[in-house]
Amino acid sequence: MADRARDSAVETRIIAAAVRLFAAQGFDATSVQEIVAEAAVTKGALYHYFASKNELLYEIYHSLLSRQLADLDRIIGDGQPPDETIRSLIAELVETTTGSIDEVKVYVREMHRLDRAHLHAIRAQRRRYHMTFRDFIEGAQRTGVFTQVASADTVTFILLGMVNEIPTWYRAGGRKTPAQIAEEVASFVLAALAPMSVAAP
Amino acid sequence: MADRARDSAVETRIIAAAVRLFAAQGFDATSVQEIVAEAAVTKGALYHYFASKNELLYEIYHSLLSRQLADLDRIIGDGQPPDETIRSLIAELVETTTGSIDEVKVYVREMHRLDRAHLHAIRAQRRRYHMTFRDFIEGAQRTGVFTQVASADTVTFILLGMVNEIPTWYRAGGRKTPAQIAEEVASFVLAALAPMSVAAP
Repeated sequence: MADRARDSAVETRIIAAAVRLFAAQGFDATSVQEIVAEAAVTKGALYHYFASKNELLYEIYHSLLSRQLADLDRIIGDGQPPDETIRSLIAELVETTTGSIDEVKVYVREMHRLDRAHLHAIRAQRRRYHMTFRDFIEGAQRTGVFTQVASADTVTFILLGMVNEIPTWYRAGGRKTPAQIAEEVASFVLAALAPMSVAAP
Repeated sequence: MADRARDSAVETRIIAAAVRLFAAQGFDATSVQEIVAEAAVTKGALYHYFASKNELLYEIYHSLLSRQLADLDRIIGDGQPPDETIRSLIAELVETTTGSIDEVKVYVREMHRLDRAHLHAIRAQRRRYHMTFRDFIEGAQRTGVFTQVASADTVTFILLGMVNEIPTWYRAGGRKTPAQIAEEVASFVLAALAPMSVAAP
């Protein structure tokens, strides 16, 4: 469970095989034997990297969340104006999500199958994402750059809900590119947060 | 799979037991034996109402979606001004969702476990919800009551995503009531859709 760089092609191949199988047939219904067959590695190789099937499940989320957290910190750290920051954050979230449909599917469906220690670690990462995002919105609301139309918490829930729902409707090569989807979502969110929204007379 | 009124207390008890067990331990990990024990009915009684565990899973979604579709039709049929309609629709969605946390959890996690025929039937209901909601937004955008800030499709995805995410963060008796959450979400959505949103000079 310790943080470590993905240090081998074998490890990457095992995770990719597990994601495919968990997404296609579910975590419970997938055996370690099927994963090693799909990844074309030995059982010994799998257990060299992962103590259990549960740790493999953990690594799928941990890896995705770690990337998204690093992007979040980088984009907020850039210190662009809040509306630009929101556009970049949404673009990044939609991009990583549409590029990791199977991971997000597994994440939404199977997170509750994690054992206690792994679940705790993932919840801590999710909480950090939520709070960093929320604090950013709240800061911009405090200075009046964004309105208080909804609490920063609720804005964050709305946005992350949209992202986690993407696997149920997004199709690669469909009518809209991830960039177009992100652009629409960002315009919607920024219109809601724009100060002094007034109806036409 | 035919539509029928929930015609007995036994049937209702079986569904409630299945929801609790599927939410707590997952669909795959729950046996028919555990469901009949939890519901305190005989296996014969269960098979009188449900051909299989899969049909029971279907009934959980079918029942929730049918209620939500009936509410959707009723609220749109009322013909209130679009902003009032949106407020009522969001209030109803948040109310039924927070009142059916276990059902929605199971829905989000286990829908892919449905067999082909049941999955097809549920997808058709979901599609009808999405399209009815989307057409309503699109109609109000066409007449200029709402802006085109995002496509009606995207607005619908954002809203339904928020709703399906509720089980991951909502706690009954928490800081905000379902009515307060709905009010915040509706204000956010209506601010985004308000015509002529302009920034303060």
